[in-house]
Amino acid sequence: MQRKVTSSRLRGGNRAMAAPVIEKISEFTVRRLSTYYRILLDLEQKAATTISSARLAELCGVTSAQVRKDLSYFGNFGTRGLGYQVDELKGAIENILGLNKRWTMALFGAGSLGHALFFHQGFREDGFFFTHVFDTDGSKIGHKWEDVEIRPFGEAKAVLKADPVDIGVIATPVQSAQDVANLLVERGVHGILNFAPRQLVVPKEARLRNVNLAVALESLSFFLSR
Amino acid sequence: MQRKVTSSRLRGGNRAMAAPVIEKISEFTVRRLSTYYRILLDLEQKAATTISSARLAELCGVTSAQVRKDLSYFGNFGTRGLGYQVDELKGAIENILGLNKRWTMALFGAGSLGHALFFHQGFREDGFFFTHVFDTDGSKIGHKWEDVEIRPFGEAKAVLKADPVDIGVIATPVQSAQDVANLLVERGVHGILNFAPRQLVVPKEARLRNVNLAVALESLSFFLSR
Repeated sequence: MQRKVTSSRLRGGNRAMAAPVIEKISEFTVRRLSTYYRILLDLEQKAATTISSARLAELCGVTSAQVRKDLSYFGNFGTRGLGYQVDELKGAIENILGLNKRWTMALFGAGSLGHALFFHQGFREDGFFFTHVFDTDGSKIGHKWEDVEIRPFGEAKAVLKADPVDIGVIATPVQSAQDVANLLVERGVHGILNFAPRQLVVPKEARLRNVNLAVALESLSFFLSR
Repeated sequence: MQRKVTSSRLRGGNRAMAAPVIEKISEFTVRRLSTYYRILLDLEQKAATTISSARLAELCGVTSAQVRKDLSYFGNFGTRGLGYQVDELKGAIENILGLNKRWTMALFGAGSLGHALFFHQGFREDGFFFTHVFDTDGSKIGHKWEDVEIRPFGEAKAVLKADPVDIGVIATPVQSAQDVANLLVERGVHGILNFAPRQLVVPKEARLRNVNLAVALESLSFFLSR
């Protein structure tokens, strides 16, 4: 029973989890962690208590070696022959992904995409909250989405100085996206999520993620083409 | 020069590319192909003609062994010591992902997310076109988005029989998502893209992709937590 995982180790107390060599961890590894997390959430709802790495891998569409490798960056999980405790592994990945915190976000662009993102229930469930919305369209400014007022883009600098956020979300037209990114960088916002289909330039200290809505379609067309 | 890639091999003429063991290829491999494709598009616009696997890997945030492994499913790409021809590799991945075809889609849900998806420029550039939109909201039915009329959900079965689509996109509230999926399966639509945050049940012959908008945020919170 030497490899049995105890709760305290999983909850972030062990050294291995505190100091992974972060630069070696690719975005794809993190994305797989998100996938494992959703599957574990689903298993928990179905009252499953344990799962083998082989079954977890199957549900996620990867190999069990991949599952073990991804988790090995963060500690020693699971018990040989018994697999993983669903609730413990879920809690551990929640910690790893930073979902045990509250994250604040500023939204740029109050068009249909911005609206869909603002009201997206899944963000709140994960701990992500929009605290500011900016737009350049005079007909939108002053309107409220829940208790957040849509404010002019020109005020963003001052607003974000007085009330900073962790993450900026860019849902503007392509031609404004770089300006928004520049403003976020200037304000020291180091997490940027970009929905505009353009490659943005940001300094190394900023983390930029581009959401390309076409990628999931490309996965479908790949399989439908066969 | 034995390993030099000729255009005809890349364009789909070789046996290796025609018959990969498709079931062995994970969604993550396909997603990486999408990433390589965008980087190659970007390089092409910058007038780059060749790229090493090391540099391509770096731009995509993976190892060069991973790049070579992903491509090896589909053929023999690149020239030892010279790397890949940007235009040829881009063309090859375009074929692999099925982006050289025109794909038709039916949209379910004409809310703000549906609106954002319908008008998303990136889909059209990739060859994905919405030909039908359905909703249950009487105030939306009869309105037109470009030349597509929003029609009642109750008509979807008949409409899709008369004018089938390749892909169904679910942008409805959670509680309607499974009904839409059932209808799509019944109509023989084998590609389903689901934006509703719910695990849907579909038979094996259907390809279901869930788009979880929170996944990109989780990648940011992971890195911002360090």
